[in-house]
Amino acid sequence: MVDLTQIMDDEVFMAFASYATIILSKMMLMSATTAFYRMTRKVFANPEDCVTFGKGENAKKYLRTDDRVERVRRAHLNDLENIVPFLGIGLLYSLSGPDLSTAVLHFRLFVGARIYHTISYLTPLPQPNRALSFFIGYGVTLSMAYRLLKNKLYL
Amino acid sequence: MVDLTQIMDDEVFMAFASYATIILSKMMLMSATTAFYRMTRKVFANPEDCVTFGKGENAKKYLRTDDRVERVRRAHLNDLENIVPFLGIGLLYSLSGPDLSTAVLHFRLFVGARIYHTISYLTPLPQPNRALSFFIGYGVTLSMAYRLLKNKLYL
Amino acid sequence: MVDLTQIMDDEVFMAFASYATIILSKMMLMSATTAFYRMTRKVFANPEDCVTFGKGENAKKYLRTDDRVERVRRAHLNDLENIVPFLGIGLLYSLSGPDLSTAVLHFRLFVGARIYHTISYLTPLPQPNRALSFFIGYGVTLSMAYRLLKNKLYL
Repeated sequence: MVDLTQIMDDEVFMAFASYATIILSKMMLMSATTAFYRMTRKVFANPEDCVTFGKGENAKKYLRTDDRVERVRRAHLNDLENIVPFLGIGLLYSLSGPDLSTAVLHFRLFVGARIYHTISYLTPLPQPNRALSFFIGYGVTLSMAYRLLKNKLYL
Repeated sequence: MVDLTQIMDDEVFMAFASYATIILSKMMLMSATTAFYRMTRKVFANPEDCVTFGKGENAKKYLRTDDRVERVRRAHLNDLENIVPFLGIGLLYSLSGPDLSTAVLHFRLFVGARIYHTISYLTPLPQPNRALSFFIGYGVTLSMAYRLLKNKLYL
Repeated sequence: MVDLTQIMDDEVFMAFASYATIILSKMMLMSATTAFYRMTRKVFANPEDCVTFGKGENAKKYLRTDDRVERVRRAHLNDLENIVPFLGIGLLYSLSGPDLSTAVLHFRLFVGARIYHTISYLTPLPQPNRALSFFIGYGVTLSMAYRLLKNKLYL
């Protein structure tokens, strides 16, 4: 029987696990940020969410959109769209026996770029801050996909 | 050579596989629910989807939004935002050699909380039903992330 | 110690890795397509994105929605909603020791159906092209979930 606890002795896999957990935790912060702005700005999407602020027609005025909330939600969706490919491709790449320092460089660049992307989006910083951080993360994932398919293509 | 079929002999991993498959199948039901409401309420997002209900200007009136459809779509997106971190962190946590009963407790709480979240969202139940079920799922994922990083951090 | 590079010697797992990487790369193309339409049609969601096209009130007119951009975004979100379950369930299914030819048939059908779904959505082709390709991908994922739970349920 395979002792699964030994899988985590593989340094590349352990590095992937650490960076993946960090960037997923960061993504989860976006939910909390959305909730924070919805509460403090009283901006809700569901009638049942604003009953504590008033009854009937009085509550309905809180069913609205807000620039700040929509900005956080766009940043969250962009995270989802980019972190899902990183997780899938990064996991398979980690199992394909890459060089440790190359792999760690990929993971660090991705995580750093995505954290900077969030800062750029929420501040907001002027372009091309956000665009550049997006393309660095995008390029890192494509680079892992290329290395994976070059070594291990099986169709 | 590693016999991969033996990985599934690991009880924690098998439990993770079962609960992950169940919650992903539940998430897929949201697509079917959206499709069901779109058809029965004749609410579409694309012109090519409503040609069977009329030609030209007559068909365009079905290009609209509907509270019920939007509610299902918000529940679906909230699922995506929370199930993706659970999948990534949960997979890595399962491979990090956790105690079986602790791990299964995490998985059961998460799956139960997310199913209750969907029920709260679609009924809709009054708050704080939905908020509580959201935070239980959120807390479970963060707890797995914490245990994973505490044991196996490699940066 | 487990030599992780040997995991990739498992043919089912290698096939899953290849198809998963291909379909994730395809999904990433949707981000580039959205960016392309936003630039060429001058349709933006954030004020900081359109400062190169004008100052002040002049720039605000580019903060708008566009049918073409919204269509790509709907296709992208539909990809996310369907590729995430495929990744999670497909990974676990690949590790559960399925027959190689059955597994490869599942992966090929899913990837083919999702590529055709994107073509149907963006062209757009008349229905039921898009609906059929959606349901083929949906059915493939459910079939893997069923086989996984039938063999390896552990609750």
